[in-house]
Amino acid sequence: MVMPISFVQIIDYLGTFAFAISGIRLASQKQFDWFGAFIVGMVTAVGGGTLRDLSLGLSPFWMTQWTYFVITLLSLLLFVCFHQQINRLAGTIFLFDTIGLALFTVVGFQKTIDAGFPLYAAILMGMMTGAAGGVLRDILINEVPLIFRRDIYALACLAGGLFYTAGCLLAFPPIVSQLGCAATVIIIRILAVKFHWQLPIVKE
Amino acid sequence: MVMPISFVQIIDYLGTFAFAISGIRLASQKQFDWFGAFIVGMVTAVGGGTLRDLSLGLSPFWMTQWTYFVITLLSLLLFVCFHQQINRLAGTIFLFDTIGLALFTVVGFQKTIDAGFPLYAAILMGMMTGAAGGVLRDILINEVPLIFRRDIYALACLAGGLFYTAGCLLAFPPIVSQLGCAATVIIIRILAVKFHWQLPIVKE
Amino acid sequence: MVMPISFVQIIDYLGTFAFAISGIRLASQKQFDWFGAFIVGMVTAVGGGTLRDLSLGLSPFWMTQWTYFVITLLSLLLFVCFHQQINRLAGTIFLFDTIGLALFTVVGFQKTIDAGFPLYAAILMGMMTGAAGGVLRDILINEVPLIFRRDIYALACLAGGLFYTAGCLLAFPPIVSQLGCAATVIIIRILAVKFHWQLPIVKE
Repeated sequence: MVMPISFVQIIDYLGTFAFAISGIRLASQKQFDWFGAFIVGMVTAVGGGTLRDLSLGLSPFWMTQWTYFVITLLSLLLFVCFHQQINRLAGTIFLFDTIGLALFTVVGFQKTIDAGFPLYAAILMGMMTGAAGGVLRDILINEVPLIFRRDIYALACLAGGLFYTAGCLLAFPPIVSQLGCAATVIIIRILAVKFHWQLPIVKE
Repeated sequence: MVMPISFVQIIDYLGTFAFAISGIRLASQKQFDWFGAFIVGMVTAVGGGTLRDLSLGLSPFWMTQWTYFVITLLSLLLFVCFHQQINRLAGTIFLFDTIGLALFTVVGFQKTIDAGFPLYAAILMGMMTGAAGGVLRDILINEVPLIFRRDIYALACLAGGLFYTAGCLLAFPPIVSQLGCAATVIIIRILAVKFHWQLPIVKE
Repeated sequence: MVMPISFVQIIDYLGTFAFAISGIRLASQKQFDWFGAFIVGMVTAVGGGTLRDLSLGLSPFWMTQWTYFVITLLSLLLFVCFHQQINRLAGTIFLFDTIGLALFTVVGFQKTIDAGFPLYAAILMGMMTGAAGGVLRDILINEVPLIFRRDIYALACLAGGLFYTAGCLLAFPPIVSQLGCAATVIIIRILAVKFHWQLPIVKE
């Protein structure tokens, strides 16, 4: 029985691809070998969702869906063959990454309320699904996590989660909450990069 | 229905505050922004309890109790406004941290035997609840974990856990075991800092 | 009721010992104290199995089996007393480590299919049980994970897992699949070290 692949699925795969490429690129700058780059790519792509699923008391989603490994493997092969071209496609990768971030936030939020947890936990899990993979990636390559020092990134997920929460409280149809959440993440992330929005540094 | 806040709750919140401040201070020394400092503060405060809950097969306690986020947020705001004063209050912070460490050890031990695990696991989970948050904090700021090289810290939790274990085996009333455990942690920790107790370094 | 200790148990303990010693040695090069070295040794030895058990939705195996702590403690005491001799026994330690790696792969694979997960997840969990402890060790000592840059290590577990998978698909008797899996890991690991097999570095 072959299911036609849904629109959400395509976005999910594009986001996974963008996250995996981001991990593989940083791994390549650290002289990692193919195996190391694959693991860093995978952790970047599925790490946030893994922490979310463990927090929800579930087995990680990739334990029963092998697609994410195949996408990471394809990302690695593409990068090995076309790294110069990919490095020039920064804009496209940023777009995929942003769309992936938005979708991961929606999925994390949705899965948390489906599991019966309160709305504030759903906001957290939305942020975690979107942003924690990058933190785990930076731990693996032994760098201070990038999102702790630069740009508005996880806060875009927070804003999206607040929209979704408002949608739940005001009884919007789910699809409206979800699209609004995703749009909020994407718009804030694009504006943050375009206008170099930064949070203040904490003074010692 | 408003419950009067209990004594244990107050200590738990003070400990959370002290742990969060310790994370936020180290984050500020690394030039983290507000978001980064918040996450490091939160991981320091709830990281040990999170690893404990996952080991017990439970969802992390903060998935259903939002208080800990509010305390971390307040800690961040206080630090941003009064960092110079807070840096001068090192003694008070040390006191809160020590009381928090003692309480976290008791809570970790108690929760583990309540979940039906053996006494030696409860000793481990007491130590983990008290000390693992600081290890996760140091991983996030990309430093070698402090407690692996300096002072008696986790061993104070170990001693407290051994007292609690003795109390269980000798059928002490729970409150006696708990107070004795907490007192053991506090006394050993204070003596360790006062007299610079150190474990030997392992020779290569 | 005393059970005679089985052959598999002896290998499991030898592997735990070798993994713990590897962690303790690296900790000693970082000037860790006894407590720090103990924790690093323990994480190296039981970290992979812990991530596996959490992924399977189980409590970590060491929550109900204290033997692994005793072995790590003995490893630490041995290292403290005989570090010069142990440093000269590199060949013996490598042998234990390799046999442990093979056994950990078999155990991880077996436990995953017993828990009802698909074969590809069992391959992953076999690799994770064998190789993730070393990654966690390197995170704790604040180094870039060694296996991301050097040697064929986790890929030996992958090859073993593929043998086991073939055995499952072809309905081999379990003992044949298990022995073949272990032999595959051991042979590939020894050949990789002997002939300096390396994966290519990913180019930037």
